[in-house]
Amino acid sequence: MYGVEGRYLDVDLTEERVADYEVPARWYDLHLGGRGIAARILAEELDGSEGPLDAGNLLIFSTGPLQGTNLGGAGRHCISAKSPKTGSVSDSYAGGYFGHQLGLSGYDGILIRGEAQRPLYLTLLGAKGRLRSAEELWGETTYETEEELIEKYQGARVSSIGPAGENGIRFSCIISDMGRAAGRPGFGAVMGAKKLKAVVVRGEGEKSLYDKEGFAEIRKDFARKLVDEEGKNFGKYGTSGGVLGLNELGILPTENFRRGEFEHADKISGESLYENYLTSRETCSGCPVRCKRVVRAEFGGEEVNGAGPEYETVASFGSLCLNDDLSAIIVANKKCNEYGLDTISTGVTIAYAMEACEKGYLQTPRELELDWGNSKTIVELIDRIARREGFGERLADGIGVLEEELGTNFAQQLKGQELPMHDPRGKKGLGLSYATSPRGATHVEGMHDTVFEGNDVARELGLEGRYDRLAVEDKAELAKVYEDLMSFTNSAIMCRFTTFNRAGDRYIYPEVREALQAVTGKELDAEEMLTIGERNLVLLKLLAARENYDRTHDDLTDRLKSRLPCGGSAGEGLPQHTLEEMVDEYYALRGYGESGPTNEKLEELSLNELERDN
Amino acid sequence: MYGVEGRYLDVDLTEERVADYEVPARWYDLHLGGRGIAARILAEELDGSEGPLDAGNLLIFSTGPLQGTNLGGAGRHCISAKSPKTGSVSDSYAGGYFGHQLGLSGYDGILIRGEAQRPLYLTLLGAKGRLRSAEELWGETTYETEEELIEKYQGARVSSIGPAGENGIRFSCIISDMGRAAGRPGFGAVMGAKKLKAVVVRGEGEKSLYDKEGFAEIRKDFARKLVDEEGKNFGKYGTSGGVLGLNELGILPTENFRRGEFEHADKISGESLYENYLTSRETCSGCPVRCKRVVRAEFGGEEVNGAGPEYETVASFGSLCLNDDLSAIIVANKKCNEYGLDTISTGVTIAYAMEACEKGYLQTPRELELDWGNSKTIVELIDRIARREGFGERLADGIGVLEEELGTNFAQQLKGQELPMHDPRGKKGLGLSYATSPRGATHVEGMHDTVFEGNDVARELGLEGRYDRLAVEDKAELAKVYEDLMSFTNSAIMCRFTTFNRAGDRYIYPEVREALQAVTGKELDAEEMLTIGERNLVLLKLLAARENYDRTHDDLTDRLKSRLPCGGSAGEGLPQHTLEEMVDEYYALRGYGESGPTNEKLEELSLNELERDN
Repeated sequence: MYGVEGRYLDVDLTEERVADYEVPARWYDLHLGGRGIAARILAEELDGSEGPLDAGNLLIFSTGPLQGTNLGGAGRHCISAKSPKTGSVSDSYAGGYFGHQLGLSGYDGILIRGEAQRPLYLTLLGAKGRLRSAEELWGETTYETEEELIEKYQGARVSSIGPAGENGIRFSCIISDMGRAAGRPGFGAVMGAKKLKAVVVRGEGEKSLYDKEGFAEIRKDFARKLVDEEGKNFGKYGTSGGVLGLNELGILPTENFRRGEFEHADKISGESLYENYLTSRETCSGCPVRCKRVVRAEFGGEEVNGAGPEYETVASFGSLCLNDDLSAIIVANKKCNEYGLDTISTGVTIAYAMEACEKGYLQTPRELELDWGNSKTIVELIDRIARREGFGERLADGIGVLEEELGTNFAQQLKGQELPMHDPRGKKGLGLSYATSPRGATHVEGMHDTVFEGNDVARELGLEGRYDRLAVEDKAELAKVYEDLMSFTNSAIMCRFTTFNRAGDRYIYPEVREALQAVTGKELDAEEMLTIGERNLVLLKLLAARENYDRTHDDLTDRLKSRLPCGGSAGEGLPQHTLEEMVDEYYALRGYGESGPTNEKLEELSLNELERDN
Repeated sequence: MYGVEGRYLDVDLTEERVADYEVPARWYDLHLGGRGIAARILAEELDGSEGPLDAGNLLIFSTGPLQGTNLGGAGRHCISAKSPKTGSVSDSYAGGYFGHQLGLSGYDGILIRGEAQRPLYLTLLGAKGRLRSAEELWGETTYETEEELIEKYQGARVSSIGPAGENGIRFSCIISDMGRAAGRPGFGAVMGAKKLKAVVVRGEGEKSLYDKEGFAEIRKDFARKLVDEEGKNFGKYGTSGGVLGLNELGILPTENFRRGEFEHADKISGESLYENYLTSRETCSGCPVRCKRVVRAEFGGEEVNGAGPEYETVASFGSLCLNDDLSAIIVANKKCNEYGLDTISTGVTIAYAMEACEKGYLQTPRELELDWGNSKTIVELIDRIARREGFGERLADGIGVLEEELGTNFAQQLKGQELPMHDPRGKKGLGLSYATSPRGATHVEGMHDTVFEGNDVARELGLEGRYDRLAVEDKAELAKVYEDLMSFTNSAIMCRFTTFNRAGDRYIYPEVREALQAVTGKELDAEEMLTIGERNLVLLKLLAARENYDRTHDDLTDRLKSRLPCGGSAGEGLPQHTLEEMVDEYYALRGYGESGPTNEKLEELSLNELERDN
């Protein structure tokens, strides 16, 4: 087949043995790559009895047809497994260069099963997989691990866990390229439970392209488009260039989502980051945009001279905790990367703890003052959480667990997954996606309620001009289309910033499909594109239903149901009855019953083999 | 004795018998009158086994030396009993003319015990008490009851309950003078449980004055002071003249205390009430201020042509529920008065229900849309609550009960008593009083954190210039002095608006003491005045301790511990650790142990007889 190898590296840690895992050709037609192929493997291989941290869980690194081609926006990889956060299959994405190497490795991905008896790491050099002892790496930070392994395997790229993953912190992540994080579902803990410290990949093959010359042209055009359109603002200020705009709209998550307006937003903005801290810009494989920050900062005796924070991190350690000290945020970001902690979840956890202390549900030790905005404590808590030290231990299993223990109702998490930094009260369609997503609250699945006015996305998807961010009407339809599009994006493993932008004035999916056709030889029209996305998302919903998630779990937090008290979206909320009406409409459109996709829906999506008894 | 009769009318409903209850002379020296004497009677008569709605509970109407003298500000009476809201002894006050009649009745008060076999009402005409059948009045509104009884007993004044008290609504009240409410502790339900429909009093005696001529002079001076100082703003706009100022400060309770700023405050302000609805002004016995509103309005087919709402009512049915329709508030106020429902508690209950519906904890029937600000529903719900009809039944036992049942944490009540319309996050000392008051959240006990600068109160009480509303330092001391002063005010049963004003530039306690001396012949200095107040408050705290209230109950709601999100007091809150430090300091000053006043404190206050075993 063009574009894919048709096999995954099958790594058994228990047996310390590697093999090939053949992927049926039909799965590529159905699922394309990335999340889709991985979810399909998990659907076939898991029997439902395994806990996320058990040996029976599978951890899958995947690519799709575009990884390894140096197409701008495709410098990404996907990681999938049963999540310690949600208890169901979830996936996670990171940019950088690891995906590119994996795309050239001779395998479309790596499937890791079992549990090692001793710390191991995996190398995939050329097409040769091998497990090696990681005894000497165990306990090291991700940065240290990566440095040592790259020193040893020149030209390779490394995904590794730090102490957080080793210590089973539920919101730990997997870090590659000194600061690119595959965060959210807690896969650092899965890797840690498996005693797998790192995966080292040096791709030595070449991607088989159906139309090599055609692809080269497309790639160049694509890059030109990106550099033209994104080299300016987005490239200049990075993802946190959005801080001031969201603050203006009144939906910059602030004080644990109590409000959407932070009086010191300017201090933590992308502009401030650019002017006061930026030393250079980095990028992912093949992408000319260079949105990644390289910064220099110092806080509390800690120095940073490397990867800077993304928008999510700036908001979660910043406005969400009422912290206006960008130096502290930069240091917090680095610490999380080194430990391998998800920055969103860590920030949301700390904000929750601040509120819980304020209200007397939690007491901190005397030396730790957990008052709002205390940047020193934020940074210190990261150490304690990652190491499960003292008060940090209480937070290490996540706010879902803590909320139950303390009897509170202000933990900002859905299905165990902490909210990302987008307040859906000012983006109603996103709220519906938050509520219904099989992965819990995620910002890379739902739509951000862009206003469509006569642009390409509207034309191709038939959504023109009917939506605005605050309206509720027709949002189920919009959410569905948009989720399908994002699910396709995550199946092709493209960067959402390069394929679609906030203003709604860029939409380059026709070009992405052209690129895919040049790689695989198969044509995709807009409808087929959306069907692939839908199929892969519905597959995840089916896997969630297997874990007994049903309609009653498709809900929002009390706070998101409440009205925003002030700012540009004051008075907006997603009250229960509104949410229920939206979910009704959405379920009808999606072909979901009370407990997940119906068999009719599965048949319609050619997923008959996965039908359920009732 | 001058000023008092030394006896209460002792009414036994079970036996349908009246007698005299002799009050030891020493009690007047210790407790003065009003809340103090009543609490002392309750302390001696209750044995702790009786529930608030049991026959064993006692309901006491009381006066003090100043009632019946026509002194401005003394046109009030006090009602005391074990409260169905808090489960402990509480008291309640109403203005009007009932207190004046009771002061002239030959008794200092009325003590009601037992439970009638059939509906009864009590007449005290001259010094003759008699129980009569109320079979024909049962089921009538307070206004209807009052009209019929006054028709029958010309010149008398009536306190009665409506359907709410008859139906045992926990936040029902006792109404006199067609709109003066003795609200808060739910004494309507106590009267209802006792099957006592009304108390009719026509005072035919004369107050025995120690210095009749001296008192006449004092009374005239007092009236002149009041008319000079209060005839302007306060008289003009009434208590709801404060709406705009509180909104400006960001502490006008809004959206169930989520914030302190209401965008439509102007529509519900005292100015708007004055300009658009006022037809006349009413007053209480002897008072030239005329702060009581007489209004004309129409809403939803209901007409009002009579008593208008006070500030508390305007805020609880207005900003608290996001309702900006003053016509609806006026109708809601009238309905509550007719049914005998406490307007504060009713508003707070509806705001809680709105939030609970928003978040999906409660579902309303289809025809009842309980969205924020829905004025039609607010008015309709009052009918349903008072009659315990359908959805109203769910709200009738109060939000404390409902919060437990639904597992929420946003019921704005303390010790079972719904918060009045003062956000203590912008008046920190009031927060301490809310938390520690033996009566639950009350606005007539605590201090409102006036800034003292070189005024009389500062000079006499030694508090000069050391406080501002947002500071926490020294607030325990201030709260204590202020509570003692208010407790004295409630023992003398004086109107707090005539004795002290918000701006802190009026303080006429020396004049009140002069008046008391002219009545009783006994001199009181400032210190003795505060000691009487303290003694009576500590006595209530002791009675709460008997009901197993201890320090752990001296707490605030989660929401009050949180920071205000916007407005003039944005960022202000009373977080747990701050509150605990304040309570520590307060307990030390008050002589409280973990479970109420210590025996040392009781001895110091000459309450040795009430000492406890441990």
